[in-house]
Amino acid sequence: MASCIFCNILSGKIDASIVYEDDDCIAFMDIRPVTMGHVLVIPREHAAGLADLLAETGEHMFHVAQHIAAALRKSPIRCEGVNLFLADGAAAGQEVFHVHLHVIPRYAGDGFRLIRPPDSSGVRPRIELDIAAEQIQLAMET
Amino acid sequence: MASCIFCNILSGKIDASIVYEDDDCIAFMDIRPVTMGHVLVIPREHAAGLADLLAETGEHMFHVAQHIAAALRKSPIRCEGVNLFLADGAAAGQEVFHVHLHVIPRYAGDGFRLIRPPDSSGVRPRIELDIAAEQIQLAMET
Repeated sequence: MASCIFCNILSGKIDASIVYEDDDCIAFMDIRPVTMGHVLVIPREHAAGLADLLAETGEHMFHVAQHIAAALRKSPIRCEGVNLFLADGAAAGQEVFHVHLHVIPRYAGDGFRLIRPPDSSGVRPRIELDIAAEQIQLAMET
Repeated sequence: MASCIFCNILSGKIDASIVYEDDDCIAFMDIRPVTMGHVLVIPREHAAGLADLLAETGEHMFHVAQHIAAALRKSPIRCEGVNLFLADGAAAGQEVFHVHLHVIPRYAGDGFRLIRPPDSSGVRPRIELDIAAEQIQLAMET
């Protein structure tokens, strides 16, 4: 897609610091890393979101991300832990609409934090969880 | 593992609201959801972290998570977007040491936020990104 920044990286029109590439996906450094060593894994074939992504490509992206996570821990980059993160949809914080899986090296005191909704700290009643599970189960079957 | 809360869910010793199960993984409701509909996908075989997880099991977990994400969007649960999230290691926020992939429904104003380190807002110089890419690339090859 001509207007997609990641497609332009794939075609070589925009520079990137490539970590890994194969027939189905590539991985490159996030230019605005959460922590130094932050990598993005993307599919070669443009897919705006998870709904457009072939299941086998998604699986492969995870495979590559797991490999990169292991490499980060072995590399000279500071890495005591790793977050994998994917935002699907604007409401989830997605900014570039070409699926990307973040691989983020973490270390104590790195300053990266997740803030939960203020009303989400408690354990929910079983009945409420059971109802949600059933709703999702039903939707998986259709 | 007797002391692992997720292994105890797998063996039926601890209750859970199961969304999905197959030979390799199960998915159930997080009892302390970030938003209503928050699901965890875990492997049946105990693996503390990504380093212990078979690559094919990781791929399969992603496959299941993608399927659940689609189901959440179709279900009556409020879901305008989805985050996939995995914390590998205490420094990354992992609390239960049995690998789990979070599938979190998102909607505008849900109150879930990621806070970047204060010094991480800028675009990094290309040379710095190239060096990091090379360090990770080398570590992937060993």
